[in-house]
Amino acid sequence: MSTDPLVVFTPSGKRGHFPKGTPVLTAARQLGVDLDSVCGGRGICSKCQITPSYGEFSKHGVTVANDALSEWNSVEQRYDDKRGLKKGRRLGCQAQVMGDVVIDVPAESQVHKQVVRKRAEARDIVMNPSTRLYYVEVEEPDMHEPSGDLERLVRALKEQWQLEGVRADLHILHMMQPALRKGDWKVTVAIHHGDDTHAPKIMHIWPGYYEGTIYGLAVDLGSTTIAAHLCDLASGEVVASSGIMNPQIRFGEDLMSRVSYSMMNKDGATEMTRAVRDGMNALFVQIAAEAEIDRTLIVDAVFVCNPVMHHLFLGVDPFELGQAPFALATSSSLQLRAVELDLEIHPGARIYILPCIAGHVGADAAAVALSEAPDKSEDLVLVVDVGTNAEILLGNKDKVLACSSPTGPAFEGAQISSGQRAAPGAIERVEINPETKVARFKVIGCDLWSDDEEFEAQTGATGITGICGSGIIEMVAEMRIHGILDGPGLIGSPEQTGTDRCFRDGRTYSYMVWDGSADGGPVITVTNRDIREIQMAKAALYSGARLLMDKFGVDKVDRIVLAGAFGAHISPKHAMVLGMIPDAPLEKVTSAGNAAGTGARIALLNTEARTEIEQTVHNIHKIETAIEPRFQEHFVNASNIPNAVEPFPILGTVVTLPDVNFNTGGRDGGGEGEGGGRRRRRRG
Amino acid sequence: MSTDPLVVFTPSGKRGHFPKGTPVLTAARQLGVDLDSVCGGRGICSKCQITPSYGEFSKHGVTVANDALSEWNSVEQRYDDKRGLKKGRRLGCQAQVMGDVVIDVPAESQVHKQVVRKRAEARDIVMNPSTRLYYVEVEEPDMHEPSGDLERLVRALKEQWQLEGVRADLHILHMMQPALRKGDWKVTVAIHHGDDTHAPKIMHIWPGYYEGTIYGLAVDLGSTTIAAHLCDLASGEVVASSGIMNPQIRFGEDLMSRVSYSMMNKDGATEMTRAVRDGMNALFVQIAAEAEIDRTLIVDAVFVCNPVMHHLFLGVDPFELGQAPFALATSSSLQLRAVELDLEIHPGARIYILPCIAGHVGADAAAVALSEAPDKSEDLVLVVDVGTNAEILLGNKDKVLACSSPTGPAFEGAQISSGQRAAPGAIERVEINPETKVARFKVIGCDLWSDDEEFEAQTGATGITGICGSGIIEMVAEMRIHGILDGPGLIGSPEQTGTDRCFRDGRTYSYMVWDGSADGGPVITVTNRDIREIQMAKAALYSGARLLMDKFGVDKVDRIVLAGAFGAHISPKHAMVLGMIPDAPLEKVTSAGNAAGTGARIALLNTEARTEIEQTVHNIHKIETAIEPRFQEHFVNASNIPNAVEPFPILGTVVTLPDVNFNTGGRDGGGEGEGGGRRRRRRG
Repeated sequence: MSTDPLVVFTPSGKRGHFPKGTPVLTAARQLGVDLDSVCGGRGICSKCQITPSYGEFSKHGVTVANDALSEWNSVEQRYDDKRGLKKGRRLGCQAQVMGDVVIDVPAESQVHKQVVRKRAEARDIVMNPSTRLYYVEVEEPDMHEPSGDLERLVRALKEQWQLEGVRADLHILHMMQPALRKGDWKVTVAIHHGDDTHAPKIMHIWPGYYEGTIYGLAVDLGSTTIAAHLCDLASGEVVASSGIMNPQIRFGEDLMSRVSYSMMNKDGATEMTRAVRDGMNALFVQIAAEAEIDRTLIVDAVFVCNPVMHHLFLGVDPFELGQAPFALATSSSLQLRAVELDLEIHPGARIYILPCIAGHVGADAAAVALSEAPDKSEDLVLVVDVGTNAEILLGNKDKVLACSSPTGPAFEGAQISSGQRAAPGAIERVEINPETKVARFKVIGCDLWSDDEEFEAQTGATGITGICGSGIIEMVAEMRIHGILDGPGLIGSPEQTGTDRCFRDGRTYSYMVWDGSADGGPVITVTNRDIREIQMAKAALYSGARLLMDKFGVDKVDRIVLAGAFGAHISPKHAMVLGMIPDAPLEKVTSAGNAAGTGARIALLNTEARTEIEQTVHNIHKIETAIEPRFQEHFVNASNIPNAVEPFPILGTVVTLPDVNFNTGGRDGGGEGEGGGRRRRRRG
Repeated sequence: MSTDPLVVFTPSGKRGHFPKGTPVLTAARQLGVDLDSVCGGRGICSKCQITPSYGEFSKHGVTVANDALSEWNSVEQRYDDKRGLKKGRRLGCQAQVMGDVVIDVPAESQVHKQVVRKRAEARDIVMNPSTRLYYVEVEEPDMHEPSGDLERLVRALKEQWQLEGVRADLHILHMMQPALRKGDWKVTVAIHHGDDTHAPKIMHIWPGYYEGTIYGLAVDLGSTTIAAHLCDLASGEVVASSGIMNPQIRFGEDLMSRVSYSMMNKDGATEMTRAVRDGMNALFVQIAAEAEIDRTLIVDAVFVCNPVMHHLFLGVDPFELGQAPFALATSSSLQLRAVELDLEIHPGARIYILPCIAGHVGADAAAVALSEAPDKSEDLVLVVDVGTNAEILLGNKDKVLACSSPTGPAFEGAQISSGQRAAPGAIERVEINPETKVARFKVIGCDLWSDDEEFEAQTGATGITGICGSGIIEMVAEMRIHGILDGPGLIGSPEQTGTDRCFRDGRTYSYMVWDGSADGGPVITVTNRDIREIQMAKAALYSGARLLMDKFGVDKVDRIVLAGAFGAHISPKHAMVLGMIPDAPLEKVTSAGNAAGTGARIALLNTEARTEIEQTVHNIHKIETAIEPRFQEHFVNASNIPNAVEPFPILGTVVTLPDVNFNTGGRDGGGEGEGGGRRRRRRG
């Protein structure tokens, strides 16, 4: 048995005997304990802080004496004077093992630390960034053994950091020689690992020890908005988040109108590429200003987007995505440099774009898959990213299926007579009084219900401007619950519904939500045409999900995750009353927020997650709804509210829907046939 | 024993039995016979042409019947009608083996064909270009199995060409989808092999079968001139050669003055980088015009240059190369893209820059080593690339040493009173009449000696304008041979030399070469100061070579190769009389022409040569003359003509040098002390 002192590291539990005088950092490295260091044990970076524990540790079978580590030394004192060391902490490279000792490595001293996520069901993010800092001491040039400065730097990285086959970006040659001399042959380099050359690449160099931080960006490039998180690549922390409208909106609100723009206008695609890259650069300026950092410290960026945005961002004409067979130029992930995409961050910054799943199921859906990990789920999970196109994943650890379904913009408030985007003044929550059949509501920007006496005063600034996506879902569902709307989607007459909130409006009836006309305000109604739009949108969403269930061979799912900013605001009960989503226990319907953005952040912070999602996407089975005959059948059934054939038994335990039918066989019912017919032709 | 027909391929001698009906191309591939094909056997490209032989072949033990191959088919007929097939040729993909047969693969049907070089001692160039064309048929997109167009193209390359892990440049995504559709899912791609990602990269795509050629450039970037060869990457042929003056000359004639310019002027290095890249682009326009090709068909380019040009071309400030310890930014080879160096050829064209040997021994010397291959030589070879700096290699297959020596520009006619660059009208050959001591000469642009009666008429257009580098060497050597100049370097008086061509010229004597003053022409003389300049230049060159011989432990070399455009014009006898080069049999002193340019061409045409020269350079032992005490000693000895201490016995069998000494001890001899002293201080 060794008489050398025993060192036990927590939380890893790794242990070993080391000769007296061994620095703790050295012991950690030899045991493979995850203890950070940028300066390589020179007492400069302080990344290797550890906390020794003293006393009896029966669990480890160790008694730690007060002199188990060497005394606090001058390097530690200097560091403490200058920057302050937390009480009980030591520098792992300075403190030497003198007796048996238990040493805790705090999270911030671990390279592969976990980044905390709030949701219980969410996967952990373990830090494993693509780009890291290394401090090295380089040999000076020697005329007797001539060699390039770069070659000596590469040798130092090999000897001091065991990095094999290091290469350098061209711009490093422009900055390296002054940096080496200014730093007196000591420099800090940022090294990018794991691109497709399988060679570590020097992508920046600072003279001496660089005390600052390097950053990465996770960008969710949506058709409407571009949202970015700026992350500290060492801690994983989000240091700033920012978003802008996608400047391509001026070429078309939705994706297909942008594809048309590129077809109708020579250089249209090029214009749109320039617009989105310019917008991206404006966003980078904004987020860097918010974080008060230099943009050139952003050395890594991950992008997720739908296929059309993917192509336009890359400068590929999206023409082929506008027509069957919807052929992507490429579905693989991409590794590029910032300069190739005209992005004004570090010129050598690495760009990673997640793989696309299919012509309509993009890198954003791949990012959702990375964040929500259906492929790791024990139970069967349906993940729905609700947007202009709904992207739908269904699966568990055995198999994952994916499709997209053209919901259209109704869920975003478009094509709805009183619809609007989610913004202050928009109705977002609705309750209809069972007796009076009058709706009360909440608007964005105010916590009060509209029947509160303070409501008018508190909404004075914004007014009541319209109904946003989540509002229209609750509105239609409440109308169905309270017998104002029948299953096939007809609004009843005042006589049929017993309320004069319903009123004749051309050939059909409408429902009065809010009449602000006395004060010169808007009149907000729900028309039967609005109901048709919502029916088509929700039928598309449901039938996509149902088709995947068919393909999976199941009739129900264990849980449902609603992703997307919009998904975060949907009431599960109302969504289920509408028949947007399959029948499921309400507590099993959760919101993942911006799962695509989270997926981008995971890929940014953990390089291995990139390989993982590439494999996952490869294994996902893609279903093209356009060529599946059953999609059409599901769509027709799902046009009913909640559904013409599916029973929704779990929903039935929560709410009883009145069995009403307002179709009297006369011309008043004609609206449905017309709307449904239009839709069916469009799908056919 | 197989009853299948026997197929014997020549010149490889590979043989095997194949079932009747096997296409010759298939048989060749299975035997690993080098038979080209771009279309993969579809009868489109005609690259697989072969010549069957009929009759008795006792050497191969085969009798070939007239029906040994299938009959001439309609594909061959169509090709013959359209483009003409040489008599006796067949298309290897169409002709099928029907009986025992002997098949010759002509050189132009081999991928790895040899490119002929004129010199017997020169190594062969075997074609193995980095970029090749492949014709493929790609599967159409299928909605049931959605995949990107690129992924299907990559799969086709794997299935049809066994290319693994193919990737694509970003710009391929911009051009691929229209090309695939225009070519009806058949395309030709240019694939670059063997960059540092170890992945074949698609770098261009054409719809259908591309009948054209792709090109590469071998560029010798010199301080004074930039010379380029444009090569067909399939045949290896040089299709055009062109050169321009290096536009950096306006910042300084020689390298050190350019380094000074960058030190003295903010952005000086940047200006010079822009100048050389602009010049390069002008050269590319010129050479493409000469060859009548589109510049974007240039997909590969290899550059060789000295270290200062290397750094300026890359955009690296050459500051460090201007002072000890002469640290290169990098000595390794570089793989870049045209766009990174602002080069206007194919935007994705690959750039390869050979490794540098040391701070004063550049990629041009590496290219000389690749062309002259001292490391493969059985006998001990001294390779001297004569320019402003002489780069010197000494070695054999056991060991190679390298150094550079600052000869200065005297060998280029600079700093010589009547000196000039090699151009029409410049004296390039000299003979002094032993009796009259009068010089006759030839000028560039005229084949007659100056004592020919037609000479004046034939040189009327150019006149006699000065003496170029090779002329001055012959002149000084002839003066030494004929007793006009003594060993220490003094020109004798008319009394001492017996000719009034020698005349008092200030404190020393000069020699009259040509007096054109009667006709208003120039007076061309050689002054004692000119002799001093040549002494210093040749002493630098010789002492570099001698130092390498010391390090190698030898007193003589087996052969000497003079490289460089200037080296091609030097008379070995005169160079040896001067003591520029070590004593050796005159027939063992040969000229390699522009060996650096040839080395660039080898690296362009054969990718494996790149790996090879990287390894060779790594193994070359570098000697820095500035820190070698013996260099100084050799220099002083070599200031004498031919040498103060070395005997030159082989030279003695060819020419007897008069034992004269014109130093009378008076002030007239002071010139030497002055010149030598100045030089010694400069080296110290």
